[in-house]
Amino acid sequence: MLDNIRVVLSHTSHPGNIGAAARAMKTMGLNHLFLVNPKQFPDAMADAMASGANDLLANAVVCSSLEQALQGAVLVVGLTARHRDLSHSMLTLRQAAPQILERAGEAPVALLFGTEMSGLSNAELEKCQLLITIPVNPEYSSLNLAAAVQVVAYELRTCGILTAPISKDFPLAAFEDVERFYEHLERVLIEIDFLDPLDPRRLMTRLRRLFSRAGMEKEEVNILRGILKKAARGRIPK
Amino acid sequence: MLDNIRVVLSHTSHPGNIGAAARAMKTMGLNHLFLVNPKQFPDAMADAMASGANDLLANAVVCSSLEQALQGAVLVVGLTARHRDLSHSMLTLRQAAPQILERAGEAPVALLFGTEMSGLSNAELEKCQLLITIPVNPEYSSLNLAAAVQVVAYELRTCGILTAPISKDFPLAAFEDVERFYEHLERVLIEIDFLDPLDPRRLMTRLRRLFSRAGMEKEEVNILRGILKKAARGRIPK
Repeated sequence: MLDNIRVVLSHTSHPGNIGAAARAMKTMGLNHLFLVNPKQFPDAMADAMASGANDLLANAVVCSSLEQALQGAVLVVGLTARHRDLSHSMLTLRQAAPQILERAGEAPVALLFGTEMSGLSNAELEKCQLLITIPVNPEYSSLNLAAAVQVVAYELRTCGILTAPISKDFPLAAFEDVERFYEHLERVLIEIDFLDPLDPRRLMTRLRRLFSRAGMEKEEVNILRGILKKAARGRIPK
Repeated sequence: MLDNIRVVLSHTSHPGNIGAAARAMKTMGLNHLFLVNPKQFPDAMADAMASGANDLLANAVVCSSLEQALQGAVLVVGLTARHRDLSHSMLTLRQAAPQILERAGEAPVALLFGTEMSGLSNAELEKCQLLITIPVNPEYSSLNLAAAVQVVAYELRTCGILTAPISKDFPLAAFEDVERFYEHLERVLIEIDFLDPLDPRRLMTRLRRLFSRAGMEKEEVNILRGILKKAARGRIPK
């Protein structure tokens, strides 16, 4: 299960944190590191901090876009410190671990970490199906990036020891297929005059939230897209 | 409970690790740091790595013997990587957390961490009432001192919270509202020629399954029904 988990670090500022994160991952048996536009990588400080986990750095996949790093992932999990208002499902790390591992029993799961200074951007949050948080001291929540990776990796390893994989009959939809569904849905909602492109408000965000919670299967995405096609056809031209 | 827990670092070599350990502790609400014969303390590197947890360093109790650091503790817990043959009780961190917290509910508990290079000495192990271990990757167990403190502190904090759900701000839809949504959905699917009432197959069952997994909120049901109304209107009559 752990081998299907990738750690995605987005726009990391300090290469030392990338190295320390690699070390943290490897101690817990996580091996797949993806870097979205790191400020400086490869780098000597990253190598020094990796301290024996240099193979993870050597095999790290450097991506120029988040979409690239999420290719093929059936579950995108964002780590966030703050409570977001229009919340996705927001769980503690401990609550989420069993479901992360269950998905990872079938297909790739991405754990997304934002920058050291400001965490995940709103655009990144939109791509997440599940938001998790590490419960910290409210008076001092200064968990550094590698420490957060360490804690998440520990939780998944420990939970994995206690959880046996259950096989699922229906393959899950990949990130890119789900994104195409959202695009299609948005187009049709505009066509049927439900969504005003000049005043979209937060409709798509709300719909994403609903479908994210469900965790859509391939076949379900196909059915919904079939419905969208039919809904758009045969309308009286405006 | 957390306020009765002290972290005891024995013979730490690198002052940076003391600072990083203080930071790790404070993020999880642990405040009491004891240092047994640290090689170098106080130290500028310790201050730098503490990054806002400098109060823990300022209040750290520097001891010249282990006995002094354990004064008043009703439970002494040693962290060890290896399995020791003259075994004390040896538990994983997760297994041990509830009992550590239970004791800490009454009186001080000491968590003892050995040196960076060789861990706890035999003399130190003798003083422990309970040995705990963090399950790591057997092929790479290089958890650094501050990372180990971070993981232990996280486990204790999380275990203390007893996994209370973080947020459920949005009221869920009642059974009957969801059923009305399914009826509405079915009607519209027939109208738009997606569902053949003479050969419905298992379409509605599949769609029910998807939305059931999500656990729909009241507001989401309203949005979806709004979409259905728009989708059905303005169509060319058959």
